[in-house]
Amino acid sequence: MDNIYMDNAAGTRLLDEVYDEMVPFFTSYYGNPSSIHRMGQKPKQAIDEARERVAALIGAEPGDIYFTSCGSESNNLAVKGTAYASAKKGRHIVVSAIEHQSVLHAARALTRLGWEVTTIGVNSKGFVDPSVVSDALRDDTALVSVIHASNEIGTIELIKEITALAKNKGVPVHTDAVMTAGVIPVDVDELGVDMLSLAASSFGGPKGAAALFIRKGVRVYSLIDGGIQERGRRAGTENVPAIAGLGKAAELARRKMDSRVEITTSLRDRLMNGLESAIPKLYINGHRKKRLPGNVHASIEAIEGESMLYSLVSKGIMVASGSSCADKALKSSHVLAATGLDPALANASILFSLGFENTEDEVDRVIEVLPPIVERLRSMSPIWEG
Amino acid sequence: MDNIYMDNAAGTRLLDEVYDEMVPFFTSYYGNPSSIHRMGQKPKQAIDEARERVAALIGAEPGDIYFTSCGSESNNLAVKGTAYASAKKGRHIVVSAIEHQSVLHAARALTRLGWEVTTIGVNSKGFVDPSVVSDALRDDTALVSVIHASNEIGTIELIKEITALAKNKGVPVHTDAVMTAGVIPVDVDELGVDMLSLAASSFGGPKGAAALFIRKGVRVYSLIDGGIQERGRRAGTENVPAIAGLGKAAELARRKMDSRVEITTSLRDRLMNGLESAIPKLYINGHRKKRLPGNVHASIEAIEGESMLYSLVSKGIMVASGSSCADKALKSSHVLAATGLDPALANASILFSLGFENTEDEVDRVIEVLPPIVERLRSMSPIWEG
Repeated sequence: MDNIYMDNAAGTRLLDEVYDEMVPFFTSYYGNPSSIHRMGQKPKQAIDEARERVAALIGAEPGDIYFTSCGSESNNLAVKGTAYASAKKGRHIVVSAIEHQSVLHAARALTRLGWEVTTIGVNSKGFVDPSVVSDALRDDTALVSVIHASNEIGTIELIKEITALAKNKGVPVHTDAVMTAGVIPVDVDELGVDMLSLAASSFGGPKGAAALFIRKGVRVYSLIDGGIQERGRRAGTENVPAIAGLGKAAELARRKMDSRVEITTSLRDRLMNGLESAIPKLYINGHRKKRLPGNVHASIEAIEGESMLYSLVSKGIMVASGSSCADKALKSSHVLAATGLDPALANASILFSLGFENTEDEVDRVIEVLPPIVERLRSMSPIWEG
Repeated sequence: MDNIYMDNAAGTRLLDEVYDEMVPFFTSYYGNPSSIHRMGQKPKQAIDEARERVAALIGAEPGDIYFTSCGSESNNLAVKGTAYASAKKGRHIVVSAIEHQSVLHAARALTRLGWEVTTIGVNSKGFVDPSVVSDALRDDTALVSVIHASNEIGTIELIKEITALAKNKGVPVHTDAVMTAGVIPVDVDELGVDMLSLAASSFGGPKGAAALFIRKGVRVYSLIDGGIQERGRRAGTENVPAIAGLGKAAELARRKMDSRVEITTSLRDRLMNGLESAIPKLYINGHRKKRLPGNVHASIEAIEGESMLYSLVSKGIMVASGSSCADKALKSSHVLAATGLDPALANASILFSLGFENTEDEVDRVIEVLPPIVERLRSMSPIWEG
């Protein structure tokens, strides 16, 4: 039996066309884009083209796209860079409780340097209430950061409403769109955001390439100082092949967005409905519709989550209990805690993150494989009375 | 006529064996190393192996190697990370005047946050005097950072002597070894350093992979917070193919170090002597012997450097005037200024950075091509009285 990859939130397969785009920059055009000679030209052009393609993906100006090495770097640059640049105006920032760790821990790092952080809770479906965000804004607030869609429970947040309210108070808004950009339609003007993080590995691009959109006029100090790469906002020799790959992945994502969303949403609903029918007392976390097209996050009563995870993995079904970082750290999910989910259910959770390369057959196989696993685990459970 | 690449300081050609090592992590093992399932295992193993290989290259413990995205990030992490962690002890750091921009600008960024920076000058050959460094150390000094070898004039600094003196005063020492690690023998214990930056693209590895050695016990705050990757010192999904490539490049460098140094040194001396014989009033910058094996940095009287550079480039000889960053920024070299070189000569400079893949034929061709260029430029110069 073939393996089934349903851990796309941890990283998607590198698409063949994207890889093909990268290869020449390994094998032939190995120059430094900052070099003035011929060997620097193709790399330079590739970066320019990638910048245009990424900008087109999110409705931005190419000049507002800054390449980084990963989504976590983009998030850190947004949070810390803005905080440092606003140190004189004020040292307060606002984040949601379900941010990715790279936002939460960046904020925590700032508290060690004298910043104050307000954390906004979410409701049981994982929604941040825009009016609560607005109420938290103060004269000394330097930044609001709210994730576009949770990497765990998939809830798509009301960013547009948040930015509208924040604009009234003159506070810039960053959104971590690592789970959405390249996956669902994302437009920086429609969202009204001042900064937006995205990462290639969420939509068929390579590891090592990500970007931060910074709207013209927003003041952000760089995290990595040095040369004049990325207009002084991110020093270091550009990772040319990865950036070229990001560009190609962005171009493909833009062109194929609609069909990908349709395929993935249909697979998601098939899996969600199938699991609910097959397994009693299985609960879908997050909002039924306003969720990422590939996200199925479920909690299953009276199950030990880790045992379920390893049982699935041993059958070649590659999934996660939540964020891959948290899996490895063996920590319980801060996202589920924020939704107020019963801790026992939170520890009985599983995340299927589907992509457009998954198939109905794969979904059906999961629907076939999981129920007997659940039954076996429940049969050993002291609390299951099914 | 084939092109001649003599800009290895800006980045070396990616070696075929290194590329081969990377390919499977694009095409097959695309998983996230933090995933607990099968798709995460090979990437995880690749990172572990790369860490061992990089450690072996510089005589370090694998647990003291932290992967980053580029040399500039390593330098920023060393400088800022140590400064932030020492904020309570003291806010003073010491750097040399010929550091790479990523150290100098990181230091400058710290001054905006209340740190004081002492910059140590160099002599005419580019040497930092260890006793001057020692004299600059204070009770509140958090860090000394001195480059192992200048990326411009190639001078190899007396790091061992500097660390010995700094140790007496309890101040940690970082060295930017981006130009030396993988190129000449580098051993962290012999050098006595507490931190050391290196980058794959200096020795046949890919862009997007670098490392910082941090000796156990040295306190460094992370620049990129988030997940638990790199033991919490550098969050973000690991760039697995690039890290695997860095590991392979390190392994090759260690194994082939002696022959590579021999080849490159011989080419360097051939070029240096050849140019001196062929061109009157050409001066080699830096120290004749204590310099990087591939570095030939020369100033040529009564020449406009940029015209010389473009003339060479137009003949397919790919070189730089100094650092590639500075070329693009059209700035004069802070390194040459620090050596006290006459500004006219500084602006009449050229950097040939040779690698072990260059040939005697290529060197001879440069020795043939450059003199008529110089003659032509001098014939147009109002100050040349040759």
